[in-house]
Amino acid sequence: MRAPDELPAIAADILGRVREERPRVHCITNTVAQNFTANMLLSAGAVPSMTLAAEEIGAFVEEADALLVNLGTLDAPRRAAIDVAIAKAIEYGVPWLLDPTFADRSEARAAYAVSLLTRAPAGVRLNAQEFSALAESEPEPAEAADFARDIAAVVGLTGATDIVTDGMRLVSIGNGHPLMAKVTTMGCAGSALVAACMAVEDDAWLAMAAGLLVLGVGGEVAGETARGPGSFAVAILDALYGLDSDALRARGRAG
Amino acid sequence: MRAPDELPAIAADILGRVREERPRVHCITNTVAQNFTANMLLSAGAVPSMTLAAEEIGAFVEEADALLVNLGTLDAPRRAAIDVAIAKAIEYGVPWLLDPTFADRSEARAAYAVSLLTRAPAGVRLNAQEFSALAESEPEPAEAADFARDIAAVVGLTGATDIVTDGMRLVSIGNGHPLMAKVTTMGCAGSALVAACMAVEDDAWLAMAAGLLVLGVGGEVAGETARGPGSFAVAILDALYGLDSDALRARGRAG
Amino acid sequence: MRAPDELPAIAADILGRVREERPRVHCITNTVAQNFTANMLLSAGAVPSMTLAAEEIGAFVEEADALLVNLGTLDAPRRAAIDVAIAKAIEYGVPWLLDPTFADRSEARAAYAVSLLTRAPAGVRLNAQEFSALAESEPEPAEAADFARDIAAVVGLTGATDIVTDGMRLVSIGNGHPLMAKVTTMGCAGSALVAACMAVEDDAWLAMAAGLLVLGVGGEVAGETARGPGSFAVAILDALYGLDSDALRARGRAG
Repeated sequence: MRAPDELPAIAADILGRVREERPRVHCITNTVAQNFTANMLLSAGAVPSMTLAAEEIGAFVEEADALLVNLGTLDAPRRAAIDVAIAKAIEYGVPWLLDPTFADRSEARAAYAVSLLTRAPAGVRLNAQEFSALAESEPEPAEAADFARDIAAVVGLTGATDIVTDGMRLVSIGNGHPLMAKVTTMGCAGSALVAACMAVEDDAWLAMAAGLLVLGVGGEVAGETARGPGSFAVAILDALYGLDSDALRARGRAG
Repeated sequence: MRAPDELPAIAADILGRVREERPRVHCITNTVAQNFTANMLLSAGAVPSMTLAAEEIGAFVEEADALLVNLGTLDAPRRAAIDVAIAKAIEYGVPWLLDPTFADRSEARAAYAVSLLTRAPAGVRLNAQEFSALAESEPEPAEAADFARDIAAVVGLTGATDIVTDGMRLVSIGNGHPLMAKVTTMGCAGSALVAACMAVEDDAWLAMAAGLLVLGVGGEVAGETARGPGSFAVAILDALYGLDSDALRARGRAG
Repeated sequence: MRAPDELPAIAADILGRVREERPRVHCITNTVAQNFTANMLLSAGAVPSMTLAAEEIGAFVEEADALLVNLGTLDAPRRAAIDVAIAKAIEYGVPWLLDPTFADRSEARAAYAVSLLTRAPAGVRLNAQEFSALAESEPEPAEAADFARDIAAVVGLTGATDIVTDGMRLVSIGNGHPLMAKVTTMGCAGSALVAACMAVEDDAWLAMAAGLLVLGVGGEVAGETARGPGSFAVAILDALYGLDSDALRARGRAG
C-alpha cells in the first residue's frame, strides 16, 4: 500500500479472498462473544470453530488458518487452552491475534496478556483503556507505533478512529458507527474478522487494517437501517454478508 | 412514592440516571443468558461484565455498582464465583440481586438459593414456580410480603402481573407482553436490568419496581412490531434503548 | 406413513402436539449453540433447559421429555454430564438424540461419538462430513440405511437434501435455504427441534423426518424476507413460531 487511500480497494480484495478461500478461524473467546463472533465470521465467509477442550483443541488449531485468543471470561480452562493453542499455532505457522478484553479491569489479566505478547502474535487488537493497561502509555498514534516495535507485532488500537501500525507503517481509519459500542462483544467479533483477514493475507498490517475497515463500513451500512442496538447487531451481519467492492471504495475512509 | 401511579415517572427518572451514570453491573449468570443480558444492559445504558474466574472476579466486583447472581446452569465454577463475589459485594457495599432461575427444577439448587438468602441480597427476582420452591407458600401478594419480611429483602414476583414488595410496601405492575415468555432468558436479562436500577437508586424497592416497569413497557413497545419471538427479542433491545419518559408515563400501569 | 407425500401433514400434526404438550427438552449442547437452541425450542412450543452441572443434571433429565446430546465444545464437564444424563434417560425412558458436531475435526471426538452409539440413542443427526467420520462410508442413502441398522437408531443425514432412515424406511426431504449454512449452530438447534418432536412422537423415524421438514420449511419462509444471515436467524424463529399446517402442506417436499 503506497498511500492510505488505497486501503479500501485492498480491503475489498482481502474480503474477496476470505469469501473465496473460506479460511478456518479457531477462536478461544469469551462465553458472551462466542455466538456473535461465529455469526460474524460466517457472514464474512470464514468458518469458525470454538472448542476449548485440552484434548481436542490441538487438532482444531493444526488445521486452522488463523487463531484468535480473546481474554474475556478468562478462567482456568481458557488459560490451559490458550497455552496449547498458541504452541500449536507456532508449530504449524498459523497466525494468531490477541484481544486482551478488559485487561484494564484486572491486574491479573493484564499481566497474563503481557506474558502472551512474548509468544509471537501476528497482532493485538485493543481499545484505549486496554492499550493503556498493556503499553503503559497514552493511546496515541506515536505510542502505538512504539508499542508495536516493542512487541514486534501489529497493533490495532480501536475507537472513534482506529490506528493500525506495525511500528514502521501507520494508517488511521475513520469508519464506524456509535451503535457499535452498544452491542456486546462487537470488538471481540471484530478481532475474529481481523484474524480471518490474517488467514488469507500474509502482511498482518494490511490484514488488520482491512479487517477493521470492513467492520467499520459494515457498521455504517447497518446504522442506516437500525432502530437501536438490537436491530443494529442483526444488520451488521447482513451488511458484512452483502458488502461489495463498490461500497468499500465509496465509504472507506483511511488516512 | 406516595401512590402507585407515581411509579412511571419514578421509573423514567431511574432509567435516566442509568443512562447518565452508566453503572457497571457484574453478572454471574448462566451460559444461555450471557449475551442477551449484556445486550439488554447496554441498551439500557449500563456497562456489563461477566467473568466468573476465581482469580479475577474480586477485582470486577470491587469496582462494580451492582452484582447479579443468577443460578442458571449452576456448576462448580459458578458456585465458587458466587461465594467470592457476594463476599466482595458485602465488603464494598455493592447491592446484589438474586435470580434463582429454575430453583423449582432441582432440590439442590433450591437449597443453595435458600442458603444465599442469608447473605443480605438487596432483592430477589423470581417467577411463581421459583417463589413456591423458595418460600414454600403460594405465589400471592400477601405471601410475597411475608417472604420479603422473612428474608429482609425486596421480592419481585414476576408473571402476567408483577408484584414488588419489601414487606411493608407493595406495588403491582401490569405491563408486559406474551412473547416475553417465548424468548429465552428474558427474565434473567430483566433481573440484570433491575440490578442496573439498584446501582443508581438506593431504595431497592423502587429500583426493582422501576426495572420491572421499564422491562414490561419495553416488551409492549416491542410487541407492536414483532412478527414472532425472533424479531421480538431484537425489538425489545431497540425499545429499551429508545424508551422515553413520555412512553413510560403513557404506558406504565402500576396499582 | 404409507407414502412420502404424507410427511407434511404428519409433520404438521407432530408440530401441533409440540405446541400443545410443551415438552421439556434438556440440552447438553455447546456454548455457541445454547442461546439460539433455546430460542428455537421456545419458538416451536417446547421448553428448554441447559444445565450441565453433575449435581443437578439428573433431576432435569428425569423430568424431561427428551434429551439432546451435542458434542460441540466437548470439555470434561460436558463428558461427565453426558454420562450421567444418558444413564438417567435410559432409566426413565426419555428418548435421546446424538448430534456429533464436528466429529470429523477431532479423532478423539469421533471415537467418543462412536462409543455413545452403543448407549441406545433414538437417533443421530449429522452432516455429510460427520457421517463419514462415524460411519466410515460415503454419505449416501444406502450407506445411511446400513449405518442405521448397524447402530439400531434413526439416522438423519442433513445437507441440501436430508435423508432420514431407520434402516428399513427411508425418506428424503428437499426443503431448506442456503442461508441456513451461514448461521452458526443452525444444525445444532435443528437437532433440538428433532428432539422436541421425539418427545411427542414415539416413532423416532417419523419424529426425525417431521423435525427436519419443519426446520427446512421454516428456513424457506425465513429466506423470503431475510436480507442476510443476521435477519435470517431472526426470521427463522419467527417462521417456526408462525408455521401452520397449510404452509407445511404447501411447501413440504418429501420423496
